[in-house]
Amino acid sequence: MTNNKLITPRKLSGFMELMPNKQIIFDNMVDKIKKTYLSAGFMPLDTPVLELSEILLAKSGGSIDKEVYHFNKGDTSICMRYDLTVPLARFVAMNAENLSFPFKRFQIGKVYRGERAQKGRFREFMQCDADIVGLEDLPVVADAECLNLVDKVFKSLNLKILNRISNRNILFGLVEGLGYKDKTEEILIILDKFDKIGKDNAIEELKYLGVDDENCQKLIETTSLKGDFDFVLSKIENICDNETFKKGIQELKEVGLYLNAFNVDKNCYNLDLSIIRGQNYYTGTVFEAIIPSHPEFGTVCGGGRYDNLAGYYTDKKMPGVGLSIGLTRLFDLLDQNNMLENVKQTNIDVQIIPLGDTLLNCLSLENFLSQKLVCEVNYDSRSFKAKMREANKRQIPYIIVVGENEVNSGVYQLKNMSNGETFNGNKEEILNFLTKSTL
Amino acid sequence: MTNNKLITPRKLSGFMELMPNKQIIFDNMVDKIKKTYLSAGFMPLDTPVLELSEILLAKSGGSIDKEVYHFNKGDTSICMRYDLTVPLARFVAMNAENLSFPFKRFQIGKVYRGERAQKGRFREFMQCDADIVGLEDLPVVADAECLNLVDKVFKSLNLKILNRISNRNILFGLVEGLGYKDKTEEILIILDKFDKIGKDNAIEELKYLGVDDENCQKLIETTSLKGDFDFVLSKIENICDNETFKKGIQELKEVGLYLNAFNVDKNCYNLDLSIIRGQNYYTGTVFEAIIPSHPEFGTVCGGGRYDNLAGYYTDKKMPGVGLSIGLTRLFDLLDQNNMLENVKQTNIDVQIIPLGDTLLNCLSLENFLSQKLVCEVNYDSRSFKAKMREANKRQIPYIIVVGENEVNSGVYQLKNMSNGETFNGNKEEILNFLTKSTL
Repeated sequence: MTNNKLITPRKLSGFMELMPNKQIIFDNMVDKIKKTYLSAGFMPLDTPVLELSEILLAKSGGSIDKEVYHFNKGDTSICMRYDLTVPLARFVAMNAENLSFPFKRFQIGKVYRGERAQKGRFREFMQCDADIVGLEDLPVVADAECLNLVDKVFKSLNLKILNRISNRNILFGLVEGLGYKDKTEEILIILDKFDKIGKDNAIEELKYLGVDDENCQKLIETTSLKGDFDFVLSKIENICDNETFKKGIQELKEVGLYLNAFNVDKNCYNLDLSIIRGQNYYTGTVFEAIIPSHPEFGTVCGGGRYDNLAGYYTDKKMPGVGLSIGLTRLFDLLDQNNMLENVKQTNIDVQIIPLGDTLLNCLSLENFLSQKLVCEVNYDSRSFKAKMREANKRQIPYIIVVGENEVNSGVYQLKNMSNGETFNGNKEEILNFLTKSTL
Repeated sequence: MTNNKLITPRKLSGFMELMPNKQIIFDNMVDKIKKTYLSAGFMPLDTPVLELSEILLAKSGGSIDKEVYHFNKGDTSICMRYDLTVPLARFVAMNAENLSFPFKRFQIGKVYRGERAQKGRFREFMQCDADIVGLEDLPVVADAECLNLVDKVFKSLNLKILNRISNRNILFGLVEGLGYKDKTEEILIILDKFDKIGKDNAIEELKYLGVDDENCQKLIETTSLKGDFDFVLSKIENICDNETFKKGIQELKEVGLYLNAFNVDKNCYNLDLSIIRGQNYYTGTVFEAIIPSHPEFGTVCGGGRYDNLAGYYTDKKMPGVGLSIGLTRLFDLLDQNNMLENVKQTNIDVQIIPLGDTLLNCLSLENFLSQKLVCEVNYDSRSFKAKMREANKRQIPYIIVVGENEVNSGVYQLKNMSNGETFNGNKEEILNFLTKSTL
């Protein structure tokens, strides 16, 4: 290995790389999410990061969005996945014969988007998705099951959320009732960005589409409604009577009943008609969760109901409902705002420092203590003083110095590095003491 | 969404994609490995899947091996990582100032090699690496720490291994002692493939290099030695006296002592001088673990000591020692040989089936039972008979059918689907019964 020409070590911009003490916390969050999904009866799926371009780009008719990382290998055109939904669609279409429906799967994995790097946006980020996919039909109770899961998963993360729920049939029906059915998509796009552009601009854009004053008012009033299910439903129940609108009302009523039966905390969700969600594949229930103490975080979890998951790959109709948490972004926000729990320098419970020729005894002691503790021997060649300094810097909670005396007597002195207190005992007594103190 | 032209759903060849009931087992193995690494005081690292080509290909001077997936995005040449060692080198070189050494990290992640797909070889596979990296120096006890970790990690997986340990200085020294120092690499390559090509071919190739009869014999005899440390060391201790050889002997003696102190089961490792490991960056201890009941699996874990991890990126000398488990391949072998533990169709403990208009009651019951159990309500629209058939097919262990009577009385009947036995009780009694039966 020649060092003549060193290459400056650096990583690609827009890629998160945590120091190990933060990575532990990230991994713990992943574990909690995973456990919650599993306990709710969702099974894991782990599709490849790479897919055939033809498959991944079916939606756009094969044209490659500039966000998507893609390349050729031999004659094969390959893409990196940019979400976990398209791979799910491909998987259920491929394996429909061998799956039981409703099929409940979760996938926690990284996805890739080569978009312009900016603060809070990552090119590689972890999505934590859970979906319920039906065959032919899927009752509305599945939507409530996902909403219940959103509640559980954020409880497991110890984050208080407000899940804002709506149903796209309400707006579809309202727009239809007002006589603008052919302009539904354009109107929804304007209403979806209401918060960003403000009321006046929204009205202007709606008018430009041909919506008259009175109807502008109606649209904006309706999408401003939020509160508990009964309250909001009582306000809108009779404002429209086409089938689409009535379907929306009916579905929301059902969702409300089911969330009650699941005993979901009423402070953690509401009915909020401003929730639209941009993607036009949503067809019923939609939701976006925020952290009310930090509204500036924006949506930390979103999802909804779609009619036909795998229509590009199969004639089988597969309606579904799902949720997605963008964990990389959420973690970054929590980190920036000092909201991460249990940030420690190290996961070591106790470090053993040999003094003189006692290494073998230290290894035996480590082996004994590591039954229940995270333990290491500091075999570094630096001086004793340097080792103590290092242990302090790393905030190692306990140390044991092992010299000849300790080897001969079998009695060790444990030192609490934060308050200097000591405890003397044989290895069993030390283990007992530490398991009581640290676990 | 138009279904006019369906795209046949398929994945890239050479990519593992497990059905969810197998994925659960894979994930459990990952969890066990992770827990073992963490308990041994290793901290997690998660480097990006993508790296700058200049960084990843430093070793080959920038030339791109055809195995490596690479592409350009704008002006940037990007590669997918093909192992976890080069990213580790980049990371420690970048962050040396902020790390404590010896730096113990593990990384469990997928790596990518676009090689020709063949049975048992995957283009995307999960590596489970653990390394200890020193600054300037790293004592031999670190090698023993890794060997101890290999033992622990396979115990956690309930797999009985034999870890075959050697030290490259033994062979370096022997070859030097026989007068072939300038041909060390060629000779090691031949000896490394001894098992594959057989004795006669090995001798022929050695002779072609200019090794005489007697020395061929010596080389082959020595690399055939295996057994417990004391036995093998006593056989070779005096066959050579150059510094390299003596260093090898000394290091092996130390490793033997440390493994003793760690109380590693002597049936799980030996000293085996046939272990060379192809990669020429190993400079001391090397090891390869096999599963003795299935030698045809080959090496399930390998690793060793290297002198200078990050020499392409920094002038800092960083010796290290590490181990790597190729989990995708190991899992595939275990699966093919029916050696996976706890293969189940589903993770559901109990399924609740509504009969008539009892869905809300079922959801409350689910909510109660899911405190401690994995529970689901079967809200599918199929007939009761079809639901029972499906529950049987999915091997769901328990079901509860909830009709009007159950709602009114609050007493449910739990049915064990494997033996037909029933248990009657209110929801608390059901939960008690099930937690005793299934957990």
